[in-house]
Amino acid sequence: MAYKLYYWPEIQGRGEFVRLALEEAGADYVDVARGENGIATLIDVMEQADRPPFAPPFLKDGDVLIGQTAAILLYLGPKLGLAPRAEAGRLWVHQIQLTIADAVAEAHDTHHPIDVELYYKDQKPEARRRAEAFRRARIPKFLGWFETVLTRNPGGFLVGKRLTYADLSLFQLVEGLSYAFPKAMKGTLKQAPRVAALRQAVAERPRLSAYLASPRRIPFNEDGIFRHYSELDA
Amino acid sequence: MAYKLYYWPEIQGRGEFVRLALEEAGADYVDVARGENGIATLIDVMEQADRPPFAPPFLKDGDVLIGQTAAILLYLGPKLGLAPRAEAGRLWVHQIQLTIADAVAEAHDTHHPIDVELYYKDQKPEARRRAEAFRRARIPKFLGWFETVLTRNPGGFLVGKRLTYADLSLFQLVEGLSYAFPKAMKGTLKQAPRVAALRQAVAERPRLSAYLASPRRIPFNEDGIFRHYSELDA
Repeated sequence: MAYKLYYWPEIQGRGEFVRLALEEAGADYVDVARGENGIATLIDVMEQADRPPFAPPFLKDGDVLIGQTAAILLYLGPKLGLAPRAEAGRLWVHQIQLTIADAVAEAHDTHHPIDVELYYKDQKPEARRRAEAFRRARIPKFLGWFETVLTRNPGGFLVGKRLTYADLSLFQLVEGLSYAFPKAMKGTLKQAPRVAALRQAVAERPRLSAYLASPRRIPFNEDGIFRHYSELDA
Repeated sequence: MAYKLYYWPEIQGRGEFVRLALEEAGADYVDVARGENGIATLIDVMEQADRPPFAPPFLKDGDVLIGQTAAILLYLGPKLGLAPRAEAGRLWVHQIQLTIADAVAEAHDTHHPIDVELYYKDQKPEARRRAEAFRRARIPKFLGWFETVLTRNPGGFLVGKRLTYADLSLFQLVEGLSYAFPKAMKGTLKQAPRVAALRQAVAERPRLSAYLASPRRIPFNEDGIFRHYSELDA
């Protein structure tokens, strides 16, 4: 039975981390909210479930309903062949994913430092200050940690000798940051050559590159998490 | 062999979620950084590990080293009898924990909306705006979700019929928010009577109440995640 993914249909957002894992594995899945009455169905599931997700994305696999991006990937990883077999390895991949999630949340807050219910234009001066700090201190700190992880695990992947969902997620984080902050990322990625190489290797995987060139890959845009406002990359 | 917890010794912070689980279970553990040369040891472990945590807290259990609060609890839960036996139940508890982690991160950003490397006093106007939105929209949204979860799972706990680490973490979240925003929380908790009752029930558990009265419980303070600045609760 096909996995059912529920996420906002017009942005990559957090749902994209799940999409990348499903696509790389060649899994059978339905991106529910992109179909007819999709958003109504999504909202209905959220409101009716015994174990209601706090927010999209969430995944249905038969009777199992799971929210929170990192928890979805924890569940899917072994099923899709994108996580190690041993418990310690799985936890380490999950830990990396949670750190990627922290970076994603901080990237979001560069354009929404005050209030998610307001527009970016209503919090521009604060966004400018927050983005400056994010570019100066936080992006280098996160990418530096991923670089260290890659250095201590020779073989080109974050964990072990095979691709995991954490590698796909790091690819997505770097793609998103490069879309939002192209000027800042150009310099920062030079300090993280292993991260840059992993990003390239993921992009060239046959299933991933086919997906990225397909209409299923929603382009980055200014409704998503990673937004390009040139004044935030100055 | 005793668990070794590594966290900053002078705040509750994210380490407290792990402490509560260990204390409720009566587990044998060492709070490493509160001992002699504790902080140097903590930093040394972070810098030398093959699988280095991004930040404290992290836990050592023999050879296993785990960072990220929610991942630590995912690991400890079954061992401490604070998680369901079935995989679906464990994932649901974890999902709740991840949502608590999101709320904690937002609570932190009320006093640090711009830059974690600056002091609160250097981002006060922005903090005021962010705290206003947090009190008005985000606290009710999070507590409303926990109330819904408790409503759909009769029995007084978030999951199933027994206490899990998610219940302890929700207690801590409510304690922290009540310390930071006493005025706002007074009204908001009235809209979430099941959350308020769970908080009370957790506080009265014998091991927990003994812990909370002991010197091992670090008082809330203005170096931690939950800080009381009256201008942010106005």
